[in-house]
Amino acid sequence: MHDLDETLDGLTQRDWQRAASGTVRFALVGLGGWTRTRALPAIGDSTLCETAVVVSGSAEKAERVAEEAPEATTPTPLTYDAFRAGDAVDEYDAVYVATPNALHLPYVAAAADHGKAVLCEKPLEATLERAERLVAACEDAGVPLMCAYRMQTDPLTRAARTAIRDGSIGDPAHVRGHMTQPVLEHGGPDQWRLDPDLAGYGTSVTDLGIYPLNTTRFLLDADPTSVTATFRGSHPAFDDVPDERASFSVSFPDDVVAECAASQNLAKAGELRVIGSAGELVLSPAFYGGEDRELVLRRGTTSASLSARHIDQMCEEFDYFADRVLTGRAPEPDGDHALVDMRAIAAVYEAAEHGERVRL
Amino acid sequence: MHDLDETLDGLTQRDWQRAASGTVRFALVGLGGWTRTRALPAIGDSTLCETAVVVSGSAEKAERVAEEAPEATTPTPLTYDAFRAGDAVDEYDAVYVATPNALHLPYVAAAADHGKAVLCEKPLEATLERAERLVAACEDAGVPLMCAYRMQTDPLTRAARTAIRDGSIGDPAHVRGHMTQPVLEHGGPDQWRLDPDLAGYGTSVTDLGIYPLNTTRFLLDADPTSVTATFRGSHPAFDDVPDERASFSVSFPDDVVAECAASQNLAKAGELRVIGSAGELVLSPAFYGGEDRELVLRRGTTSASLSARHIDQMCEEFDYFADRVLTGRAPEPDGDHALVDMRAIAAVYEAAEHGERVRL
Repeated sequence: MHDLDETLDGLTQRDWQRAASGTVRFALVGLGGWTRTRALPAIGDSTLCETAVVVSGSAEKAERVAEEAPEATTPTPLTYDAFRAGDAVDEYDAVYVATPNALHLPYVAAAADHGKAVLCEKPLEATLERAERLVAACEDAGVPLMCAYRMQTDPLTRAARTAIRDGSIGDPAHVRGHMTQPVLEHGGPDQWRLDPDLAGYGTSVTDLGIYPLNTTRFLLDADPTSVTATFRGSHPAFDDVPDERASFSVSFPDDVVAECAASQNLAKAGELRVIGSAGELVLSPAFYGGEDRELVLRRGTTSASLSARHIDQMCEEFDYFADRVLTGRAPEPDGDHALVDMRAIAAVYEAAEHGERVRL
Repeated sequence: MHDLDETLDGLTQRDWQRAASGTVRFALVGLGGWTRTRALPAIGDSTLCETAVVVSGSAEKAERVAEEAPEATTPTPLTYDAFRAGDAVDEYDAVYVATPNALHLPYVAAAADHGKAVLCEKPLEATLERAERLVAACEDAGVPLMCAYRMQTDPLTRAARTAIRDGSIGDPAHVRGHMTQPVLEHGGPDQWRLDPDLAGYGTSVTDLGIYPLNTTRFLLDADPTSVTATFRGSHPAFDDVPDERASFSVSFPDDVVAECAASQNLAKAGELRVIGSAGELVLSPAFYGGEDRELVLRRGTTSASLSARHIDQMCEEFDYFADRVLTGRAPEPDGDHALVDMRAIAAVYEAAEHGERVRL
């Protein structure tokens, strides 16, 4: 008989935490909506992190964000150029890069040059080739690199992984995941996500489809072997990117498949479901932070569920990364892990373009 | 402001009912588990139907089922041969055919010869060609034919269709549906569903995948334009059918797609989700009768739900069919509607075999 109380405690006790105390001082590079509304408050609420430096293309924006930051000491504002030049380099221990995708490489490389640990947003870069250079820059400099897959430090997702490992649903066989949002309502048609020079291969798969893709890898501890994909849509705001709406299928070893969908031009939705030989696990809503989320395990006529109101996934992620830095251990998911997704994503765009299966 | 009470009433008030009274006497052909555990009790609970005749390949089985039927008057037991020969033809008004798929044609044709209205289980037949002959037999005899898509008379599904028609989710764009069950736990490896001579093209798509396929058609009032499909699995019980586990994608006009999955060899699960430009509708669990089911409409940060415990979908279906027969109106979904699914299903098997998109 399982102890419900113990199960629930597992949601709040961090299975990864080793550092009793300590602080990692962050430079935040890229002060878009995500950094301002998610990263800054999360660091403010974290136990092991503080925002020491904020970096923007605009000196004025950096100053404004610094003044509004929820920190006892106002962070130092820097421009991109000043950051690359090494200004205030003694004021921070680690760098969080949340610029548009195609700007990850120069700022991660700068952080690596400065000898700082790097937490880089997903996707790792705009293209596979640039992502490989990004990983190499960190390896050459000997700095830790983590890709900011916040699902991997989300307590509900970790509980799902444990349940699958424990055999709760038998052999996992069929995964179904989707993530959609109406991106035009948050930024209009001229945002960087719709500009291939900044976004990369596209937008719905790189920015949203990566969630079911990477979370499936995490849950199953497996890597893709091939992909197929179909893109749809005819909204003019998406003329420059191929994937207004994407359906893609990711094959894994042992005949396991993940049927994924992603769109930047549909209502906000998201779910991840793993159907096995003996039961199913559903995480719903799955991928958006700041929502009441539920993990349900169904087997035969019985079901069990864990629910959580407003878990701050970013706070978990920052504290996890800081814990690793403070204890001198390599953070996961690392650059090589993220490159597997970049290869799969490149293959998805290739598969959609040519209408055929692409092997990995 | 919507009236919740009125909305809920809509679930129990049959929007299709015209007949105030009357009785349609049924002959039930094929006395497998579905007929015994679902159809017979549903007719017993119905307001417009009664079981007058039960027909089996085995005289002894027909007698036993007749004795156990929940009817005031014990139904007349007949063998298949006696039914075809016209025995007891004055004792029934309509025929429900729930034999293995490849036996639908001879018994529907016999019912048509006897001038009886026909309610035939889905899929309409084992192959498209046989299904076309089945429809022709009813047309030639001038008898009404309805295919037993119980989702179409399910109150929650009808509420979903109304919501979509009313624009609740904006433009529907992406449908996700799946239906799985562990069929080996209910009949072992030697059942007719795994025998292509009786089942037809396969088993997971014909028997289960047809649910998300047909329900999507019903919800969107649209017909498929092309399909792609991939089959997986290596369980020896499925050696004679290609689709132990099926993923298939059904394209509809206006760039709408339904991503479907079906398996006879996974844990029991099922859901149907329609994501639109302004919101999403989820029917979960979707397709199995006898479960507590819920219809959820989400839009922005708000959601509304309708739930129902144990709606007897078969009772709704039988009474709907009887209502149509009693009032002399053609029942829907008719044979031509069912042939659209047969063409799509044949295309799904072709698409999986050749690994390419098949247009309809």
